[in-house]
Amino acid sequence: MGIPDEQIFPHATAAAAETVAKHQQPQDLIFYSGWFCPYVQRAWITLEEKGIPYQYKEVNPYKKEAHFLALNPKGLVPAAEYKGRALYESLVLCEFFEDAYPSCKPDLLPNDPVDRAIARIWLDHISKTFIPAHHRLLQLQDPEKQREALKDTYTSLRKLADNIKGPYFFGDEFSIVDVAIAPWIVRDWVVQEHRGFKRGDVSQAWKEYSELVEKRESVVNTTSLREHTVEIYGRYLRDEAQSVAAKAIRAGGVIP
Amino acid sequence: MGIPDEQIFPHATAAAAETVAKHQQPQDLIFYSGWFCPYVQRAWITLEEKGIPYQYKEVNPYKKEAHFLALNPKGLVPAAEYKGRALYESLVLCEFFEDAYPSCKPDLLPNDPVDRAIARIWLDHISKTFIPAHHRLLQLQDPEKQREALKDTYTSLRKLADNIKGPYFFGDEFSIVDVAIAPWIVRDWVVQEHRGFKRGDVSQAWKEYSELVEKRESVVNTTSLREHTVEIYGRYLRDEAQSVAAKAIRAGGVIP
Repeated sequence: MGIPDEQIFPHATAAAAETVAKHQQPQDLIFYSGWFCPYVQRAWITLEEKGIPYQYKEVNPYKKEAHFLALNPKGLVPAAEYKGRALYESLVLCEFFEDAYPSCKPDLLPNDPVDRAIARIWLDHISKTFIPAHHRLLQLQDPEKQREALKDTYTSLRKLADNIKGPYFFGDEFSIVDVAIAPWIVRDWVVQEHRGFKRGDVSQAWKEYSELVEKRESVVNTTSLREHTVEIYGRYLRDEAQSVAAKAIRAGGVIP
Repeated sequence: MGIPDEQIFPHATAAAAETVAKHQQPQDLIFYSGWFCPYVQRAWITLEEKGIPYQYKEVNPYKKEAHFLALNPKGLVPAAEYKGRALYESLVLCEFFEDAYPSCKPDLLPNDPVDRAIARIWLDHISKTFIPAHHRLLQLQDPEKQREALKDTYTSLRKLADNIKGPYFFGDEFSIVDVAIAPWIVRDWVVQEHRGFKRGDVSQAWKEYSELVEKRESVVNTTSLREHTVEIYGRYLRDEAQSVAAKAIRAGGVIP
């Protein structure tokens, strides 16, 4: 018997569908994607920013098809096949695209070693404080716990916002830190509509930053219609989602 | 009033004390350490492997001294001050030492972009599956939960072991993956004595790998006497520890 998450809309829409259409030819790099997934979008934005040649393949990670599991035993998107070797994990892929395509610009990791380390500190912050708080905000049903999760979400984003040089995190150059948070900015209408989240309640700087990031061409070109996205988020908001992350949050644990 | 964890033995011992003594002169890089901390040891092994000039400073992170908090608002070791700028997070520091000292050899990240990505996938595996399971194994008091944690610890290490090329993770060259797990190998006598952990129960390959890694010069030279280490672990084993990680595990959550 299928699980509900298998029934997701099968392909990208809006500007993202046009991007998919442009990336159907075989290439050294195959990008295994789920159009709806924020982790996928990190890797996808990076590919688009750098103009890396890639072949786009849509995968429904909830279906765990044998071909895909053979490639990526974790069964998660995003994943990539590069000259026959399999790679996965969103930020690993972002760094891989930097390492494997040094002539594709812009560099999304700063060149200065200290700034590179600072970028990685903030990637770690997003992974360890923002994402768990945001997941709890989406999924938890108890109003008191939702209030706590909203507060934790604000605290985490405010820390990030306080460190934005402006207009982007590191100043004029769009970087891996902006890439890492962008997919949650373009999806924050979900928590705005259902959980009382307001960009301005993080800070004025966060509101301005969010408005800038969501207009970035690579972000727009990897974003699908809200009407299909909301079907997926509806399952999180009712705590019915069956993804690995959803189950982990439900059990009070760590997002693997 | 002080908390128990403030009372830890104040400095490194055995070969680690000799290493500390050799690194007292001012340098561009100040390394803020806690001699007992496995995360610290990752960064410290990297410094020693690469022969990077650094000044060692011992910090008791539980005391949260104002000077140290000003440098690192998270108040955690390891931390580094490089030409006046503060950095922290163990794996961020390991990668920083690679980036900032390209002429200091050996390279602990492979040069091949795919291998670099594979290294980062296994660093992620260690952080997300091994460390939480090992923390639960140390801290949880219920025997049934300890059995589950032991099983999870074995599963996680076996996956890593199955991917070791041998003798080290990437073959002949010692790498960041070996660095990242080494501090837990040299401390595994704690779970051997108190939680029934056996290297051979992971796999024969794991046993051989562990015996090799714990003899590595950089590992020996950053390891202190067991008699002082056990005081700290005793607090974990009785679930009395007050570290951030200990409190997180107690609350059923994520290690921040």
